Amino acid sequence: MSDLNKVLARIDAERDNSLARLFKLLSIKSISTDPAYADDCRTAAVTLAADLATLDLAAEVHPTDGHPIVFAKAAGTHPGRKRAIFYGHYDVQPVDPLELWQTPPFEPRIATLPDGRKAIVARGSCDDKGQVMTFIEACRAFKAVTGTLPLDLTFVIEGEEECGSKHLPGWIAAHKAEIAGDIAFVCDTGMWDPKTPAITTALRGLVYEEVKIKAADRDLHSGLFGGAAQNPIRVLAKIIAAIHDEDGRIAIPGFYDGVKELPAAVKKEWQALDLTAEKFLGQVGLSVPAGERGRLVIEQIASRPTCDVNGIWGGYTGTGAKTVIPAEASAKISFRLVEGQEPVKIREAFRAFARARLPADCKVEFTGHSGAPAVALDWGAPPLAAARAALTQEWGTEALLIGSGGSIPVVADFKRLLGIDTLLIGFGLDDDRIHSPNEKYDLTSFHKGTRSWARILAALAQ
Amino acid sequence: MSDLNKVLARIDAERDNSLARLFKLLSIKSISTDPAYADDCRTAAVTLAADLATLDLAAEVHPTDGHPIVFAKAAGTHPGRKRAIFYGHYDVQPVDPLELWQTPPFEPRIATLPDGRKAIVARGSCDDKGQVMTFIEACRAFKAVTGTLPLDLTFVIEGEEECGSKHLPGWIAAHKAEIAGDIAFVCDTGMWDPKTPAITTALRGLVYEEVKIKAADRDLHSGLFGGAAQNPIRVLAKIIAAIHDEDGRIAIPGFYDGVKELPAAVKKEWQALDLTAEKFLGQVGLSVPAGERGRLVIEQIASRPTCDVNGIWGGYTGTGAKTVIPAEASAKISFRLVEGQEPVKIREAFRAFARARLPADCKVEFTGHSGAPAVALDWGAPPLAAARAALTQEWGTEALLIGSGGSIPVVADFKRLLGIDTLLIGFGLDDDRIHSPNEKYDLTSFHKGTRSWARILAALAQ
Repeated sequence: MSDLNKVLARIDAERDNSLARLFKLLSIKSISTDPAYADDCRTAAVTLAADLATLDLAAEVHPTDGHPIVFAKAAGTHPGRKRAIFYGHYDVQPVDPLELWQTPPFEPRIATLPDGRKAIVARGSCDDKGQVMTFIEACRAFKAVTGTLPLDLTFVIEGEEECGSKHLPGWIAAHKAEIAGDIAFVCDTGMWDPKTPAITTALRGLVYEEVKIKAADRDLHSGLFGGAAQNPIRVLAKIIAAIHDEDGRIAIPGFYDGVKELPAAVKKEWQALDLTAEKFLGQVGLSVPAGERGRLVIEQIASRPTCDVNGIWGGYTGTGAKTVIPAEASAKISFRLVEGQEPVKIREAFRAFARARLPADCKVEFTGHSGAPAVALDWGAPPLAAARAALTQEWGTEALLIGSGGSIPVVADFKRLLGIDTLLIGFGLDDDRIHSPNEKYDLTSFHKGTRSWARILAALAQ
Repeated sequence: MSDLNKVLARIDAERDNSLARLFKLLSIKSISTDPAYADDCRTAAVTLAADLATLDLAAEVHPTDGHPIVFAKAAGTHPGRKRAIFYGHYDVQPVDPLELWQTPPFEPRIATLPDGRKAIVARGSCDDKGQVMTFIEACRAFKAVTGTLPLDLTFVIEGEEECGSKHLPGWIAAHKAEIAGDIAFVCDTGMWDPKTPAITTALRGLVYEEVKIKAADRDLHSGLFGGAAQNPIRVLAKIIAAIHDEDGRIAIPGFYDGVKELPAAVKKEWQALDLTAEKFLGQVGLSVPAGERGRLVIEQIASRPTCDVNGIWGGYTGTGAKTVIPAEASAKISFRLVEGQEPVKIREAFRAFARARLPADCKVEFTGHSGAPAVALDWGAPPLAAARAALTQEWGTEALLIGSGGSIPVVADFKRLLGIDTLLIGFGLDDDRIHSPNEKYDLTSFHKGTRSWARILAALAQ
């Protein structure tokens, strides 16, 4: 029996214990965007560091001005052994609306889905605690079987991915010398479908803005002032309504500057995937693609830049009727960027677009949240082929190379600050409800994901 | 000394006690739109009924399916004495945002304004508890001086004015025979300015709608679904943005059907009032009229129909960034109507307008809150002249006849169900912040308002 086969057998034998360890992590309320959960974030970091310390690693919890970063690396040096970085995040999204959760979000459980699949249900089960643990469990099995890890690994597990990763780039820059690796792994992406594994080779960037429109210096009575006084909700709605034109294109001047058309070969391959609106949108109760007219659905979600309003609020939102003209109204608006778009320019273009629609007696305030460029990985390198073969072997289906609409800013940071390419491999599924109530992670994703990493590590160690 | 002069002297002597009685009423949290305050509403009704019972009136608290109605009328009959109805409301608006109140909203206090005026600060101080008490205090002084009231009065004081007066029309219809009066008084309107009293002879109507747009069957991740999945905030913003055209006109088909132009004589009189944007909007920090281009500011607020978004909400509204495409988004939208517009038609026209802008895979739900037609009073009757003369005498400045942008549905109910005209006289000021934090009522409004009612009652009793 080869070492790899022993490791895979060990992973199979450890299934229940692996799950128990994941459940422990899932029960920690590490919501990073809400300051009320700062202690929970710290608890998650300390828990992970203690776990990593059992794997022949020197593990530390590094404070930042935000939530801490878990940093672990090989305790000694192993001449000739290859080096790699693993990045993940222990923080999770907020859980509201809480009333839509079938069970409490931080009390993980196993659910059986209508089609018989079994899944782990909890906030963070997929994004990203479950995915992080597939990698750690693979390492644990190697340690148990061989007494050590197959590569010299450096772990960077942050706690601010869901709120903009503000402190990560500075931390990476300050620790360049200690972060050793020729390649990085990130387990925060998805499979093509429940049977087909995938490696993500393109990621959209993100610019996130909060905009507040201020009109009168106080809330007004709509009967007394209505008709004469400007209403900030009306101003905000006019700005939002103007962002997309009738063809679903974004009408902000300069928005598409630098955006390239898909290479013909890729477009042909994507067409062959036949991702219809029915298939993609049908799963969430929709049917009409809302993006740019004349584009494939997969282009709309993977290779074209987009804009979404993520939240809006203003005026009276309680029960019943209140005839108020509010003093202010706010929205959270984000843009997914593709290769060629510069976050700073997009942010400025949006702000100018909003200002141009502002009545003379209103004011606008902007708060910039995260901003990250898109990443397109150029994969001629051997690790990609090796990882693809390992995934194909585990799942029995050829692993696909795909683009993802999501944003993982650290990939750009690793490239810019360390010159390192990243292998994005994950086991999430489209119906995992990440960022939504009842987030889940298939048991198969967790178990075969762990086995996949074991195969990839073994392949890269050779 | 005439009876009236004795009554006026009594009012002056009772100033502090009057204020103490008002403060007691103001300390009751009778927020009608929020079911959590149902007991407080009942307490306010019982308190008022007990007070009215001391004024030679048979006072009762009538339950409804909502908040109770205080009903009081002359204990006996007084042949030859004229009859009148007084309408007011004891319920108040919600107090959010609470953090903007300088002192707790239900702990009334006297504040000195920057220009030296003294004012009662509390939720309901102006709308409508303070105004109601000007009338009751005038009655109390008559009772003290003459042993009785100058007219046979019927009081109807409801607790649902701020949430649509749902149960009042049915109650009036059921008690037609007991509600006796040749004229009705309502004290829920304003003065022209702090020195100039006014009688309101036209009121705008109100149609209040809540609209909810539903897209996907769950919240989605904007990175994974953004570009393809419809965003309900975008749909809602498109609807709201389309309501007003570039000239500030409402673009809903049929909205202006039946709306009449102002008679030339009235327009000339209103022009002479010289209510500039600077004067009217400057007091709340604005300067650009937002209504129909080419109209006087006073037309925009008093004689033209309008639309305002009173509240909007959807998606993530907490601290920080969440990249969600929400499943739904909602808004509260209200229309102020003028003579000639039918509430039912306006509501249907708005719903059709919204439905016409709905993508095929989205849904819309409407909840209708209050609906009331506009009222234009035709005043050739002697009570108007008598009341105007009494007001002019008290304030030393000719009382104006004005239109108001606000809506007081009971005026239409009295006309429709009882055939009775209403005299709308109130002492609110434009800077009273009704429906807003730090609502106030000038001490002068309260004191001279009470004296004004004494003069009006004496004049009408003759």
